[in-house]
Amino acid sequence: MTTEEINVSGKTYDEMGFAKLDTDRKRRTGFAEVVFCAGKNDEHLVEIYKRLYEHDGCVFGTRASEHQAELIRREFPQAEYDRVSRILQIKLDDKDPRANKQPIGNIAICTAGTADLFVAEEAALTAEYFGNKVTRIYDVGVSGIHRLFSRVDDINAANVVIAIAGMEGALASVIGGLSDKPVIAVPTSVGYGANLGGLSALLTMINSCANGIAVVNIDNGYGAGYMATQINRLAVLGRVKEE
Amino acid sequence: MTTEEINVSGKTYDEMGFAKLDTDRKRRTGFAEVVFCAGKNDEHLVEIYKRLYEHDGCVFGTRASEHQAELIRREFPQAEYDRVSRILQIKLDDKDPRANKQPIGNIAICTAGTADLFVAEEAALTAEYFGNKVTRIYDVGVSGIHRLFSRVDDINAANVVIAIAGMEGALASVIGGLSDKPVIAVPTSVGYGANLGGLSALLTMINSCANGIAVVNIDNGYGAGYMATQINRLAVLGRVKEE
Amino acid sequence: MTTEEINVSGKTYDEMGFAKLDTDRKRRTGFAEVVFCAGKNDEHLVEIYKRLYEHDGCVFGTRASEHQAELIRREFPQAEYDRVSRILQIKLDDKDPRANKQPIGNIAICTAGTADLFVAEEAALTAEYFGNKVTRIYDVGVSGIHRLFSRVDDINAANVVIAIAGMEGALASVIGGLSDKPVIAVPTSVGYGANLGGLSALLTMINSCANGIAVVNIDNGYGAGYMATQINRLAVLGRVKEE
Amino acid sequence: MTTEEINVSGKTYDEMGFAKLDTDRKRRTGFAEVVFCAGKNDEHLVEIYKRLYEHDGCVFGTRASEHQAELIRREFPQAEYDRVSRILQIKLDDKDPRANKQPIGNIAICTAGTADLFVAEEAALTAEYFGNKVTRIYDVGVSGIHRLFSRVDDINAANVVIAIAGMEGALASVIGGLSDKPVIAVPTSVGYGANLGGLSALLTMINSCANGIAVVNIDNGYGAGYMATQINRLAVLGRVKEE
Amino acid sequence: MTTEEINVSGKTYDEMGFAKLDTDRKRRTGFAEVVFCAGKNDEHLVEIYKRLYEHDGCVFGTRASEHQAELIRREFPQAEYDRVSRILQIKLDDKDPRANKQPIGNIAICTAGTADLFVAEEAALTAEYFGNKVTRIYDVGVSGIHRLFSRVDDINAANVVIAIAGMEGALASVIGGLSDKPVIAVPTSVGYGANLGGLSALLTMINSCANGIAVVNIDNGYGAGYMATQINRLAVLGRVKEE
Amino acid sequence: MTTEEINVSGKTYDEMGFAKLDTDRKRRTGFAEVVFCAGKNDEHLVEIYKRLYEHDGCVFGTRASEHQAELIRREFPQAEYDRVSRILQIKLDDKDPRANKQPIGNIAICTAGTADLFVAEEAALTAEYFGNKVTRIYDVGVSGIHRLFSRVDDINAANVVIAIAGMEGALASVIGGLSDKPVIAVPTSVGYGANLGGLSALLTMINSCANGIAVVNIDNGYGAGYMATQINRLAVLGRVKEE
Amino acid sequence: MTTEEINVSGKTYDEMGFAKLDTDRKRRTGFAEVVFCAGKNDEHLVEIYKRLYEHDGCVFGTRASEHQAELIRREFPQAEYDRVSRILQIKLDDKDPRANKQPIGNIAICTAGTADLFVAEEAALTAEYFGNKVTRIYDVGVSGIHRLFSRVDDINAANVVIAIAGMEGALASVIGGLSDKPVIAVPTSVGYGANLGGLSALLTMINSCANGIAVVNIDNGYGAGYMATQINRLAVLGRVKEE
Amino acid sequence: MTTEEINVSGKTYDEMGFAKLDTDRKRRTGFAEVVFCAGKNDEHLVEIYKRLYEHDGCVFGTRASEHQAELIRREFPQAEYDRVSRILQIKLDDKDPRANKQPIGNIAICTAGTADLFVAEEAALTAEYFGNKVTRIYDVGVSGIHRLFSRVDDINAANVVIAIAGMEGALASVIGGLSDKPVIAVPTSVGYGANLGGLSALLTMINSCANGIAVVNIDNGYGAGYMATQINRLAVLGRVKEE
Repeated sequence: MTTEEINVSGKTYDEMGFAKLDTDRKRRTGFAEVVFCAGKNDEHLVEIYKRLYEHDGCVFGTRASEHQAELIRREFPQAEYDRVSRILQIKLDDKDPRANKQPIGNIAICTAGTADLFVAEEAALTAEYFGNKVTRIYDVGVSGIHRLFSRVDDINAANVVIAIAGMEGALASVIGGLSDKPVIAVPTSVGYGANLGGLSALLTMINSCANGIAVVNIDNGYGAGYMATQINRLAVLGRVKEE
Repeated sequence: MTTEEINVSGKTYDEMGFAKLDTDRKRRTGFAEVVFCAGKNDEHLVEIYKRLYEHDGCVFGTRASEHQAELIRREFPQAEYDRVSRILQIKLDDKDPRANKQPIGNIAICTAGTADLFVAEEAALTAEYFGNKVTRIYDVGVSGIHRLFSRVDDINAANVVIAIAGMEGALASVIGGLSDKPVIAVPTSVGYGANLGGLSALLTMINSCANGIAVVNIDNGYGAGYMATQINRLAVLGRVKEE
Repeated sequence: MTTEEINVSGKTYDEMGFAKLDTDRKRRTGFAEVVFCAGKNDEHLVEIYKRLYEHDGCVFGTRASEHQAELIRREFPQAEYDRVSRILQIKLDDKDPRANKQPIGNIAICTAGTADLFVAEEAALTAEYFGNKVTRIYDVGVSGIHRLFSRVDDINAANVVIAIAGMEGALASVIGGLSDKPVIAVPTSVGYGANLGGLSALLTMINSCANGIAVVNIDNGYGAGYMATQINRLAVLGRVKEE
Repeated sequence: MTTEEINVSGKTYDEMGFAKLDTDRKRRTGFAEVVFCAGKNDEHLVEIYKRLYEHDGCVFGTRASEHQAELIRREFPQAEYDRVSRILQIKLDDKDPRANKQPIGNIAICTAGTADLFVAEEAALTAEYFGNKVTRIYDVGVSGIHRLFSRVDDINAANVVIAIAGMEGALASVIGGLSDKPVIAVPTSVGYGANLGGLSALLTMINSCANGIAVVNIDNGYGAGYMATQINRLAVLGRVKEE
Repeated sequence: MTTEEINVSGKTYDEMGFAKLDTDRKRRTGFAEVVFCAGKNDEHLVEIYKRLYEHDGCVFGTRASEHQAELIRREFPQAEYDRVSRILQIKLDDKDPRANKQPIGNIAICTAGTADLFVAEEAALTAEYFGNKVTRIYDVGVSGIHRLFSRVDDINAANVVIAIAGMEGALASVIGGLSDKPVIAVPTSVGYGANLGGLSALLTMINSCANGIAVVNIDNGYGAGYMATQINRLAVLGRVKEE
Repeated sequence: MTTEEINVSGKTYDEMGFAKLDTDRKRRTGFAEVVFCAGKNDEHLVEIYKRLYEHDGCVFGTRASEHQAELIRREFPQAEYDRVSRILQIKLDDKDPRANKQPIGNIAICTAGTADLFVAEEAALTAEYFGNKVTRIYDVGVSGIHRLFSRVDDINAANVVIAIAGMEGALASVIGGLSDKPVIAVPTSVGYGANLGGLSALLTMINSCANGIAVVNIDNGYGAGYMATQINRLAVLGRVKEE
Repeated sequence: MTTEEINVSGKTYDEMGFAKLDTDRKRRTGFAEVVFCAGKNDEHLVEIYKRLYEHDGCVFGTRASEHQAELIRREFPQAEYDRVSRILQIKLDDKDPRANKQPIGNIAICTAGTADLFVAEEAALTAEYFGNKVTRIYDVGVSGIHRLFSRVDDINAANVVIAIAGMEGALASVIGGLSDKPVIAVPTSVGYGANLGGLSALLTMINSCANGIAVVNIDNGYGAGYMATQINRLAVLGRVKEE
Repeated sequence: MTTEEINVSGKTYDEMGFAKLDTDRKRRTGFAEVVFCAGKNDEHLVEIYKRLYEHDGCVFGTRASEHQAELIRREFPQAEYDRVSRILQIKLDDKDPRANKQPIGNIAICTAGTADLFVAEEAALTAEYFGNKVTRIYDVGVSGIHRLFSRVDDINAANVVIAIAGMEGALASVIGGLSDKPVIAVPTSVGYGANLGGLSALLTMINSCANGIAVVNIDNGYGAGYMATQINRLAVLGRVKEE
């Protein structure tokens, strides 16, 4: 957002009464508005999907329930719902000139266990939606570290790594020590007892002894996929700069 | 680290008895070993500075006390100590062929208040040590948001932004909403009462409603400067890739 | 309550066995007794609505379930239930001389997102019930701060502002910096992961770097509407004082 | 701040390098910039006092140490330092036309114990600095509630009440039940053991069963005095409104 | 328990395989074994009721569900279930020589609100089961403190007071200041948001500025009734002492 | 306090400006006002000791520092200071008719370790000051439970037991299971690491599986001694009652 | 795992797409792979049971639901499901040469109450699955410590003790003081209120004043049974060592 | 302790007034009484060292300050003080028949960083005092995991492993995955910010995804050395058993 845009307030969103839809977002930031479905009531959700579809020809929603998926598919039969990640999207028609032709760069997504997949796939589908190539490296937790080492070269081939782990969350530190690329750590709510709903893994990752690690919210696959996109784009496209 | 390097274990560090110095680090990761001075005893600190100086011709230490600065300067009169950031470094001789000729890219470092400077300067000197150009944007906290807006164009000119704030830590979210570049958020221990030594700001940043934000430990200016370097390098140098 | 009233104890409430109804409240404080419906059993709730209706000609209940709404409407068909705020009220008959003729002053109610509406409407309906004019300013969270700025003049036209936000709760600080009127901050339970059910937003608001902000309990729209009423009345009616 | 002022950014503060002094603040908000002395280094503090004195003819600083008081008094012998509240101020010369002639309205400041005085006096001096009349009602904690009742009429004569308590912090709820005016609750760090440095009192106040109470940070006497000023001014001066 | 009893281990309980029933308890301590029903499976519960009934002619169970009540009433039609307190008891036949003839002494049980009744009745029925006279003083929370004062003489007539409150839990401190008898404080889980499931009230009570207060677990009406019995018995029966 | 006394407010305390001394306390409650010395400034402390001495002929102060002891002894050479408990008292002259002739009843004070003595002696001296006989049973923690069992008969000879423990605080539960008298549990700050300054022991005691246990604040020996006095007096003196 | 095995990465697990099954585990560590059933979807669970059965002739799964038990029994009618521990296992055919002939050594498993059985049986069945002899000592909590003492000799006959307790968790400390063998403490989620879902018991055990105690996660019976097996094996089999 | 010993209470300790010294401990458990020096006053400490020396001919004290070391050396010039571990011991004379001739077995002690040495050496000296052979493997944290792998064979040669780490504490999980021997995890207070004084590392270790790990208190090197001794003895000496 430039100084100018802040000043010309009132024109860069779509007032819907119950919400202010940021329809100008893609032009400004390169990222279209995404729908956080959880907790939205039925009418609002349908209305938002319609508006965004009219505007962009595609819609990407996270944390959608099965019920919401059915609801949207009644209006948009082409909508796709992924049960693992709970992502509900209407993709651009292949012939649409706005469709991403080729995924760029490389984002590695690693999980400690199979129970972390719901977060990993949220991150992966997000990154793919935003046009990135993704390498999935799942179930490589530190309790059987030989599994992780068998994939070290794949991890190092990426521009940015997403490390996803619940329970004690040690995976992020180990990857941080193995890779020279930035690592986005995602704690998950996987575990029980003293995992404190994911807070323990979050604390582990925040206190990491390895460098090059930063942390997003518990189970926030979308946020990780988003930031990884920003970094991967910088790596591939560089930045036109006049400084 | 490649698979091979993991296997050839035992050769990539310098055994000092009380420590294992990672002298091969720069070759592998592009980042030389850095000294965390806090808590090290006098003899150990001097010995480590000597070893690293012999190996690299320069040493970079964080969290150094005034006492430690004097200690090192007795051995290395050219050592420089910055009271604000507590960084104690021996710089490469200008004529040394390994010296960084020109800082690259652009990292913006923003603070909410003047009390956050000790963290900001740790991040800034770190980033400069690793060869980045840094733009300092200090005292732009949200309680007087016009100060932040007067610098929006400077923020957007950077490849990556470091947002540093104590108390309620709201700065990171606001910058996250203004910038399309990745934001590394650093909570600080600045504040009192229910700031919980910085935990409140950390929680604010982890829960940010804005995208493209990830968080490092409280007061961890070094970690933020390190990760910003990784990202800035990707933006400037891209990545030689064969995939 | 004056010293005298404390002394003349035992006469200023209505003993119902399971409860002591404060029927004298409006005379003393200008605020009639309000019913917190959550957790009350059916018979008790109906009995309380009957007693208050007899006494005041109107009843205002918060946190009512759909079931409770049906229950009361069987007795009082004119009762109105608002699904968003969960407020269940029997309004004064328009011809009743006690009915508020004209709302007074101006209370601005701002939310960060659409998910915070259930709290905002609890505050808004409460403020309207107590006779205040309300300005609703919804979905102006800091991740798209241009939306907030387009409404700055509306915020500044109010005598008191209620700032409602979940997740990281940064909205309160930004409004605190923009307005010279008192701001009542309401953290909400909206969010996930490290939002700790609203505690993170509460901590953000308590630690605000901006002045003129005080905080009520998580999701406590009623409490915010109540205190805003007290302040708005002071602004409009002043205070008859003999000191 | 109006929309216009946000846009004309860059002119409403005084760039000092290490800080951005908000010298335009009084015109905009009716509150001059106040100095939070704690943690500022000597040169910076002196420079800030000089700038503000030049600009306003007076300076008000909170959380000043004895050392800082001596430092400032070397430059400004007329500076006054209050050991209890740690406030360090240079008052306007009586003949200065900007001097407040008469304190307005009435703010009641209550404490539970004598140990809470350092917070109470910070609030009281702040309120007096901003031109309010203050009524001090100290050591009226709930363990000897007859002391509080002997002052009920004084409490009810105020436009706004500040309730200050450490330990279990019950005072705020009791006052909230006795008064029909807004109550600003200030938890203090007074206590030991499970008081958690004031967090227990904060939680007590946030969960208050009485209405009309909002809470500021632990030991934040300044913040309470500031917000009480906003409310007292509304009560006395009303609000010039065109809506 | 005397030294001897500890030594003669193995004879003072009834081994049931899944449990060791302390059938000798009443003789030793004056309190018969009580059943904590929550979480027990059906067969075990029935078996335990049978054993205790055979042994004592009466059974007292806490935290029983409706389902458990039906279960036991199928075997013991005379069993009584109280929905509020969830206590499920088989009383001694009136003609049984072991039946308590007359309740002794006086225990005052106070609650802040009507929502705390489920805890208060657990305490009250427990105290009555153990042979105490109980005075119920409900809905006397501090937000309308005149209700409490109208019952002060009743509180002071008791040998021991149980103070039950959720939300901020201030009631215990106020009663502690009014009474010279020991006060057993019971925090309840009543409230929402920052009440932390009752922890906030617990902290309030533990930090009480009043003397003569000690605290039991959240919602632990049984524990309060038990300890109040111990104290009331001491007051009425004194203690046969040879020291 | 009776209803009457609440009403006749303003006469039952001694207004000292900075404090309201409750000089009427002993008549009302049987407990003279006690001084919490920690944090009081020198002049105030001396003035309070003087007033109380004039009024009662004795003064009892807790948490006094060595400095405060010297201060008071300069005025009252007969003052006694106990280094372990930090109690600073001026005892009644033996010939004073108000002096307690004979300690009554029996309070057992148990500690888990020797490090808990500072709390135990605060409790013991308090109980002795209020006229009780005290039995000290120290260093009987559960890690060597035979030490506790060798004193079981002494514990059971008391009317009330104070159980003091830091670290994991298990002592209270074990004593609760051995004794049929009320147990006042005092968690202490003794320990390190995850003892959380005494919170861990507090939680242990609050969650005790044994009945007849209630808990006071961390290190609150005074509070335990006070409440034990109330109970011991009931046991010895009973209660004159007309109900 | 030897250095060699780490290097020969990629061959020691069975890639299943959604998971990497560690089929080589038993050879390396003496412990076959175990299935954590909770949260696994139906197809995955069945597939994993099939693979492990093919490989090992037996499968051991923890935290299985009734639904999962039925699912597996449809494929493997010989599967056994234990409702208390929720363990779902297919045992080795008695004639299978790999079947454990005789349980070795002795592991004592103690619980404080009957409600802790679900954890105790998870530990017991785990230990038995891994070939250990188990001594069950249930319902010996410290509130009736004579029950524990009647079993002291049984506890001391074991090589290692598992101490399981919820609520305040004091059992571990008492056993730690009675036994000279290592004690593995398991906090359980049994309790309510301030038990914090088992965290209170965990803190108790971590802070134990007795030596020889270490703690596993809340309700982690499996983990305790596993580590007890390691220790019991060392005691029985010793260790073939060449150092 | 056998049933008999519990009964013969009163003879198995040495009553010192302020403490009950467990002089019979070595006979019962194989571990002599050890002195926790921190917080003990001078006279008590000296007296305890004297008593134990008389009884055992040696004394082992932990957490001793330099001052305490000097104090003891004045009495026992042969006392040795280790500055890193803060252990202060008087060793048995070599010719004393009670002196351990040869250390047995093998305990591996690993640390993540050099800052954890103070805990590691407390564990190591403890283990050596109790007669074990110790293998020190320091500075092998996961951020440079090749250092750990170069020592894998040393780790696997031990009977039991102590894993010591601060910050995020991930080392324990990685070692747990590499070793088939029991791992005692020791979180340390090393770190800053969100390390919460070691609680974060503790949570990491408690939630470990690897099996065979149990946790002791933060910085509790002594406790880890003690339990490792118990396990190592079992491995070397087995257990004379009659079951």
